[in-house]
Amino acid sequence: MFKINDNYLKLPGSYLFSMIGKKVNEFSKANPDKKIIRLGIGDVTQPLAPAIIDSLHKAVDEMAHAETFHGYAPDLGYEFLRSAIVKQDYQARGAHVELDEIFISDGAKGDSGNIQEIFSENNRIAVCDPVYPVYVDSNVMAGRTGTYDPKTETWSDVIYMPCTEENNFVPQLPEETPDLIYLCFPNNPTGSAVTKEQLQVWVDYANKVGAVIIYDAAYEAYISEENIPHTIYECEGARTCAIELRSFSKKAGFTGTRLGFTVVPKDLKCGDVMLNTLWARRHGTKYNGAPYIVQRAGEAVYTPEGDAQLKKQIAYYMNNAKVIMNGLKDAGYSVSGGVNAPYIWLKTPDSMTSWEFFDYLLEKANVVGTPGSGFGPSGEGYFRLTAFGSYENTLEAIERIKNM
Amino acid sequence: MFKINDNYLKLPGSYLFSMIGKKVNEFSKANPDKKIIRLGIGDVTQPLAPAIIDSLHKAVDEMAHAETFHGYAPDLGYEFLRSAIVKQDYQARGAHVELDEIFISDGAKGDSGNIQEIFSENNRIAVCDPVYPVYVDSNVMAGRTGTYDPKTETWSDVIYMPCTEENNFVPQLPEETPDLIYLCFPNNPTGSAVTKEQLQVWVDYANKVGAVIIYDAAYEAYISEENIPHTIYECEGARTCAIELRSFSKKAGFTGTRLGFTVVPKDLKCGDVMLNTLWARRHGTKYNGAPYIVQRAGEAVYTPEGDAQLKKQIAYYMNNAKVIMNGLKDAGYSVSGGVNAPYIWLKTPDSMTSWEFFDYLLEKANVVGTPGSGFGPSGEGYFRLTAFGSYENTLEAIERIKNM
Repeated sequence: MFKINDNYLKLPGSYLFSMIGKKVNEFSKANPDKKIIRLGIGDVTQPLAPAIIDSLHKAVDEMAHAETFHGYAPDLGYEFLRSAIVKQDYQARGAHVELDEIFISDGAKGDSGNIQEIFSENNRIAVCDPVYPVYVDSNVMAGRTGTYDPKTETWSDVIYMPCTEENNFVPQLPEETPDLIYLCFPNNPTGSAVTKEQLQVWVDYANKVGAVIIYDAAYEAYISEENIPHTIYECEGARTCAIELRSFSKKAGFTGTRLGFTVVPKDLKCGDVMLNTLWARRHGTKYNGAPYIVQRAGEAVYTPEGDAQLKKQIAYYMNNAKVIMNGLKDAGYSVSGGVNAPYIWLKTPDSMTSWEFFDYLLEKANVVGTPGSGFGPSGEGYFRLTAFGSYENTLEAIERIKNM
Repeated sequence: MFKINDNYLKLPGSYLFSMIGKKVNEFSKANPDKKIIRLGIGDVTQPLAPAIIDSLHKAVDEMAHAETFHGYAPDLGYEFLRSAIVKQDYQARGAHVELDEIFISDGAKGDSGNIQEIFSENNRIAVCDPVYPVYVDSNVMAGRTGTYDPKTETWSDVIYMPCTEENNFVPQLPEETPDLIYLCFPNNPTGSAVTKEQLQVWVDYANKVGAVIIYDAAYEAYISEENIPHTIYECEGARTCAIELRSFSKKAGFTGTRLGFTVVPKDLKCGDVMLNTLWARRHGTKYNGAPYIVQRAGEAVYTPEGDAQLKKQIAYYMNNAKVIMNGLKDAGYSVSGGVNAPYIWLKTPDSMTSWEFFDYLLEKANVVGTPGSGFGPSGEGYFRLTAFGSYENTLEAIERIKNM
């Protein structure tokens, strides 16, 4: 008789965003006349930039003729895309990353869920708290997190690194020594950023204790301040301790187009074994590449036109962030984030729990946000709003919140 | 200090198709004047059908405007695609499959590699021998296969079900009882098919012993004979024992466009736990959906125009299969497959090993095929050719082989 992976049964409730979707659907059915504004799940709303649309059409036309048709993509992804990435995302920032250290994928969610597979079950993971749920849930599924305590909403074998007002939402080095450290900067959900000096401390620590940093830089395109690193490979020594995850979802509006990549430096080793080789093997065995047309769309992101159009798009969203920040401050809320990230992190008023505030906001303002507690115990009492709505909707949402 | 997943180190050599790619590249560099014809990896060569191209352009245009832009897809995939699948792939064949039993993905390679995750480590897998390498390799990575014996090229904990000339390349029920049974019909690599009665025996057996059949039906569109089931759900009782994997790669030429789906019936349970729920959780946690534009392209496959165009495309490839079959028979080869599948399975001449014949064919005829031994020990002494080349190339390849 077959047996299931029991670890799945340990997962409490359903995936955060599925739960939000369910609640919103129910509210929407019960209140068909209300106009709901969604600043919850981090989904973009602006259309793909013209340079990307042109590139997609051109690639589709190529697929229509045998001479220019494309079948299976190369294992690591097309070189035209990987070399644009190496040049513009890394060389241009003085970071050393090579062509065969880049693995094109269909986005950072898959990569951040799958990356744990190349590590043994006996690794202790450390995560920021609050944190993007995929890091923890994928490790739960792999049996790496011990038992769940519903009272504290924590896993016995996970090292939590609280990110709160007290530390300006940047974690301290943990007391217990982890093997895998998930870091995400600019941060989802708090919107906080780290300076190069702060990140260097983590790189030095990881190299010292023999840990791997899994660095999620999905929001790097939103960095507006100086001295905030766009890649962990700006730090010295990162090539021997860090894997970096990148996404086109927020940088170029690809949430429904799907493209991302993972960088695994060849200097990152366990004894003689390069993690690059392990990830290549996983990639080659369980993945068959991002669509040709989408990889061409990704290439357009790195053209001068694409780059200029996307800078405008990001400025549009970051203007929304400003609207939210200022509006909430005016309304007396305590807020952070929103400067180097499209996320605004606010303290719930009147000691409401995060889900209470979710319901309250949905009910009173018909605005959807994300409960901070869905990201971990230290997120309790906080709430995330995103800058990814339209300008008009964002304005309206903030007006409604002010008038609650 | 972090630890790697040691199971990866047990994997012998590199992934079959990567190895072939390497050999062909080397030959190509050494012989730049030779025109190589690739009938090796099962990659299609015909362009996407006009209905699909139209649909892609239309969907790209939608992505260019905020009003019709699409962000994150629904967890299971868009309903327009899932309902077309339910109607045409299942209801039309008298098979009962429901909307929320379909999980749209980026192809069957990922799904067939990932599906083992929802099962515990303590499941005994059974595979046909020869077999598509992903089934075994993904189980090796999960630590489910025991130790590898390089002499016999087998894993101690895997149940191999030989498919040879003697059983007409259809496996017998195994002597040892498996928990997970991987079946692929029409078969890759042998090109063999099973009748509905033969498949019913497997369904009854799986229900009796409490095993799950992972049924890879990636090649169902190539079935030309009556009484060959297009889906395992044509068999009575399959809903309580079978998961089905489907692909658009060969049905619609999507090897570089990436689309597939997995069916997990809600009747398939371990105690009270529905495998559908587990797969939904995996899908929702580690995957973010196939691109909107690609799901629209998939929808076009089910339109009358798309259907008619693809029937022609498949007829084109199956005519190639006939050319290969007849040509090889004329040249004195012993061949099978090629009737309900785009694969031709031939016995290597003069007791050559599969890799010896690979080198011989590459050297003498500049034709690339796939060594049968790469698919498992019982594939030794066999060789796979695919019908996915152009007609002209296929003809030329067969002429060259005849003249060797």
